[in-house]
Amino acid sequence: MIRRFITTVADHTSTCIRGRHLRRALLSSLMALGVSSATLATTASDEHRAVILLIGDGFDDQHVTMGRNYLMGAAGELTLDTLPIRAAVQVETVDAQGKPVYVADSANTATTLAGGQVTEIGRVGTDRQDKDIETLLEQAAAAGYRTGIVATASVTDATPASFMAHVSNRGCENPEIIMGGERYGSQYPGCPDDARNNGGPGSIAEQIIASPAHVVLGGGLKHFDYSPFDSDITLLEQAKSQGIAVATDLDSLLTSDKDARLLGLFAPKHLPVRLRGADGRKAEAVTGSLLNKVDERLGTVEQPAPMACEPNPEFGTTPTLATLTEVALDRLSRNNDRGLFLMIESASIDKQSHARNPCGSIGEIEQLEEALAVALTYAELHPNTLVLVTADHAQAAQIVPEPSLFEDLPLPSYTPGKIARIETPEGGLMAINYATTVFPSEEHTGANVPLFGNAQALGVVKPFMRQRDVYQAMRQYLGL
Amino acid sequence: MIRRFITTVADHTSTCIRGRHLRRALLSSLMALGVSSATLATTASDEHRAVILLIGDGFDDQHVTMGRNYLMGAAGELTLDTLPIRAAVQVETVDAQGKPVYVADSANTATTLAGGQVTEIGRVGTDRQDKDIETLLEQAAAAGYRTGIVATASVTDATPASFMAHVSNRGCENPEIIMGGERYGSQYPGCPDDARNNGGPGSIAEQIIASPAHVVLGGGLKHFDYSPFDSDITLLEQAKSQGIAVATDLDSLLTSDKDARLLGLFAPKHLPVRLRGADGRKAEAVTGSLLNKVDERLGTVEQPAPMACEPNPEFGTTPTLATLTEVALDRLSRNNDRGLFLMIESASIDKQSHARNPCGSIGEIEQLEEALAVALTYAELHPNTLVLVTADHAQAAQIVPEPSLFEDLPLPSYTPGKIARIETPEGGLMAINYATTVFPSEEHTGANVPLFGNAQALGVVKPFMRQRDVYQAMRQYLGL
Repeated sequence: MIRRFITTVADHTSTCIRGRHLRRALLSSLMALGVSSATLATTASDEHRAVILLIGDGFDDQHVTMGRNYLMGAAGELTLDTLPIRAAVQVETVDAQGKPVYVADSANTATTLAGGQVTEIGRVGTDRQDKDIETLLEQAAAAGYRTGIVATASVTDATPASFMAHVSNRGCENPEIIMGGERYGSQYPGCPDDARNNGGPGSIAEQIIASPAHVVLGGGLKHFDYSPFDSDITLLEQAKSQGIAVATDLDSLLTSDKDARLLGLFAPKHLPVRLRGADGRKAEAVTGSLLNKVDERLGTVEQPAPMACEPNPEFGTTPTLATLTEVALDRLSRNNDRGLFLMIESASIDKQSHARNPCGSIGEIEQLEEALAVALTYAELHPNTLVLVTADHAQAAQIVPEPSLFEDLPLPSYTPGKIARIETPEGGLMAINYATTVFPSEEHTGANVPLFGNAQALGVVKPFMRQRDVYQAMRQYLGL
Repeated sequence: MIRRFITTVADHTSTCIRGRHLRRALLSSLMALGVSSATLATTASDEHRAVILLIGDGFDDQHVTMGRNYLMGAAGELTLDTLPIRAAVQVETVDAQGKPVYVADSANTATTLAGGQVTEIGRVGTDRQDKDIETLLEQAAAAGYRTGIVATASVTDATPASFMAHVSNRGCENPEIIMGGERYGSQYPGCPDDARNNGGPGSIAEQIIASPAHVVLGGGLKHFDYSPFDSDITLLEQAKSQGIAVATDLDSLLTSDKDARLLGLFAPKHLPVRLRGADGRKAEAVTGSLLNKVDERLGTVEQPAPMACEPNPEFGTTPTLATLTEVALDRLSRNNDRGLFLMIESASIDKQSHARNPCGSIGEIEQLEEALAVALTYAELHPNTLVLVTADHAQAAQIVPEPSLFEDLPLPSYTPGKIARIETPEGGLMAINYATTVFPSEEHTGANVPLFGNAQALGVVKPFMRQRDVYQAMRQYLGL
């Protein structure tokens, strides 16, 4: 039955339907198909409380606007834009000495959102003295809420990990790399103090299995294919032997035991993204004339040709973020009067921005929108449900003029970085600049990030907050 | 008397005082000094309505965060951040055919904020068919409100001009350039149809004198030093002969006739900015090693040395934006029971970002904060006062990691553009990247911009708006 519903969701969400209509369509699908009475029943009890936190990784206002312009048109509105609450959130980071650092990574920011403390770049669920920070997921689970994590990243990646695990460095995803070694051509120290060989709680993958999270869905299968130091059995097999239902594709997800803990891992690392640039093109450098090669300020340049976005053939039968969200909410709300905490991450808005692929980011913004529609449908049926959407940090992409503001002047104006000129469905040409670095991966940036909330957020969030305040708001909402 | 008050304001605002304290200090200064009973009297009449619109040019979330980090510290709050209403505003632009354009300039956006219609880049108070768009200032004046404009730009520059004038191109600032000619090494077409020689309303400077604006304060003296085609008398002399009080420095501003229309022009072009980088330094390129010069992806680079911000010696006795705001509110509210519309622009947040000078932008963000404090003090004393702060468009500056997120990897990571590493008062190092173009001036960017409002904005603004909605909100507030 749920399979039919998911197909319906996918049909609805494959085109750009305005949020309101999408939510209504989802609602009627749910009602018509009668998926899980627990999911559908409006909870009368005041005891029931739910927090659904959606994180768009790197989803700053440039990316929000990129998504709006492409998916809805410059005069249109995202589902996000229809939410009644909007705020700005300051991202805080410190160095080892506690001094402010003005640009964050996903590990320290997710740790702050999950645990309310400001920490160092790279840290997962630990403070700068390497002490564990208890997370909202852990607190909620201890208070009887059912908890879950959904991500398009590997579930061992920084954002999901920071809600379930505690290690000194985000790279310590599995029992092998936690001991350090060669990584990206450099020596990686790992987190030997956290390793089980040394009496620690183990790698992120090991800690996820041991965590109270009832549902964990995303990528990262390869990290569970390692055995801990004291065993010949892989983590995945150990999970199964502990009664955890394991899914590795849509079929096994939908047929898995609905009452068991659920671990779904749908790709070796991160899930493939939905969209890509035509023929796999990304942002590119301009081509300069001979004079321009002599002096970059002179001569003329040719901009990269415009490109459309197209479906990424690698996406295939990957479950969408909306499908994973629907399954997670279904499992978390079965026979559960207490309520739930669910974190949903659209991870590759950021990853595709690192890779200078605006179409990739846009497709993952669409996925976030669809997951939000599912969350809002759940909230309509369960009144005491706080839905928040935010970003962890700002990112490199910038919408830049097409053509240049200086096109009439006798010197060329063009990016020193890489640019993609995206043909939008409404017939415009949206130029996206990536120029934080010449390195193969773009750098994050430091702007405050947006936060959006449903009506339950009224009085719960303020117009300006810090990420640690967002943690406190969720915590108070759940009465923790 | 007002002179003493202004000195007090300047004393208070020369250091970074938190908004709340600054407002309280301003309020007690006002009360103690008894400046202008009209300004101080709390208006009981329901008839009285005021709208104060502050525009930070280019003041997007990267710039807001730059300002917060420098002026208040990463854990601090700007006065803006204490406001009860915060929203996001989509910036809309069209080309000559009406197709969407994703990055704006200050002319078309100010035209939309002032007149509620989406138009082409470069247009001032005209639509894409070159028809005049009636502005909020004109409507308010016709309805009996007193109106004013304060800017740190030339008052003929795009943002202030769009509230008072109607020409086909922002460059048509005076009676000479309106006929076209050589400009920045290119042939400039001007706006001959708008010229008085051709039966038009004349250049922006001429239209400002003919506009209903009661107070116009800013830069741009040189544009009023031209004579119209049918006269030997300069525009400035003509203004005086029409009974307009003219001020060109702080002394003549403070001694000017308080009951006359007031034109204050305190610099030939834009007003000098308050801060600059140490020794006048701006963002700079990195210096590469020999191997790096052979291939930019290899070798090592040296980042520009960190720099402090310092007072700009050119600022001198230039009236601050807070002083201009205070004088404007004093003049607009004298013997006036109806109310007022005042637009205040901190223009050089944008101009200094074009010039890759983050200290320059930060000083002008501080000026915006101080002007906001004055506006909020006025609103405390006049309950029916809507105070809104927004930006016209996003800009190039980006806060980037310091050091790089990739510093441990064996390839260099550095901007292909220009970077400034600013020493913040709290002891951090904030790196600002400018890399939209190799042209001498940075390009604007396309993110939606923030909007902040006082409690009067509750129910007046929505969490997500377009710039034309902001116009409608102000219009409705004034009952126009």
